Amino acid sequence: MTLDRQPGFSRLAPQTGTHVRLEPGDVLTIVDPSGVQVSDLYCVAADDVAETLSSGRSIDFENTIRFTTGGRLWSNRSRPMLTIVEDTCGTHDFLLTPCSQQTFDILYPDLGGAPHPSCFANLVGALSPHGVGPDQVGTTLNIFMNVWADGDGELHIGPPPSRAGDRFSVRAEMDLHVGITACSAEKSNGGVCKPIDWSVTRAGGA
Amino acid sequence: MTLDRQPGFSRLAPQTGTHVRLEPGDVLTIVDPSGVQVSDLYCVAADDVAETLSSGRSIDFENTIRFTTGGRLWSNRSRPMLTIVEDTCGTHDFLLTPCSQQTFDILYPDLGGAPHPSCFANLVGALSPHGVGPDQVGTTLNIFMNVWADGDGELHIGPPPSRAGDRFSVRAEMDLHVGITACSAEKSNGGVCKPIDWSVTRAGGA
Repeated sequence: MTLDRQPGFSRLAPQTGTHVRLEPGDVLTIVDPSGVQVSDLYCVAADDVAETLSSGRSIDFENTIRFTTGGRLWSNRSRPMLTIVEDTCGTHDFLLTPCSQQTFDILYPDLGGAPHPSCFANLVGALSPHGVGPDQVGTTLNIFMNVWADGDGELHIGPPPSRAGDRFSVRAEMDLHVGITACSAEKSNGGVCKPIDWSVTRAGGA
Repeated sequence: MTLDRQPGFSRLAPQTGTHVRLEPGDVLTIVDPSGVQVSDLYCVAADDVAETLSSGRSIDFENTIRFTTGGRLWSNRSRPMLTIVEDTCGTHDFLLTPCSQQTFDILYPDLGGAPHPSCFANLVGALSPHGVGPDQVGTTLNIFMNVWADGDGELHIGPPPSRAGDRFSVRAEMDLHVGITACSAEKSNGGVCKPIDWSVTRAGGA
């Protein structure tokens, strides 16, 4: 069952994405209205889109691979881009790139190479009007995604632990173009791709 | 004690880096002649430097955070760039960005913001003559670097487990500009920055 969309929220249809413009202090909230659904997030500085989200710098400066409330997401120029201000789930991934056509081709050969919607294509579609090309869309913060490494370093992907209504909010630390998705990979989302709701609370209160 | 440089090898002085040009089939070998020393590696496609090493795609497609013999390093365009063909150590990191001036400023405030050599600056210096700008130098493969996450996701950095003479070799799967370093961060290298030896075996045998 999918919860009704709350006032002030927009809904991303399954396997789609969108662009969000944030100014410093604005808070973007991502809600999983159904449970067991991932939302990928990527961002670039609005005043120079060559400044992009960096998983490596974020992991380095925050000294963790588990990002939750209080954690910051850093750019390739070592500046904070976003601060996590709310997280009712606690499980997210910052190791993997967004699912792409090649993800399906290489990792799911049973799909026979058929065209498949992807977070990568959706993020490129959302961000390319703002000057961000596909080569720049790197490792995303994969909100609610359930990835862990075992003792041998092998990765495992389980169903997202998010329950219907779980929320994840980030505050902008600079002017940003943000791309967000309702993830397109059935196998990462409990077998069925579902919607994602989102809302922005403007710093100015408007 | 540092081992003598072997015939055919070049030596990187402590806290330096260099550029290496590889053609398909060429094998680049990195040797730690002293033990307990990290070497960072980054690469881009020679025919279009916007195609860069991608930790996220590599972790995704190889399904691991532990890279060793047989593993491949992938580009942001989902193509294999390098295959690991020899690894006598077994411990390397692919989560962290190279040490940079900001690493020292942010993580080691006891250094007081003093200028410090860094892998990032050395890689930019090695690769910028080939058209690679600082914004493009992302997460490096940190050869012999000893990084692990505990059960809470917190990262820990220990002394590199490499012994004097340990070797790590990669075969080029495409034309590449490669940057390699003898890592500049005292705290990641057992307290003292030491040299790194390297050699290329050309596919053509020349």
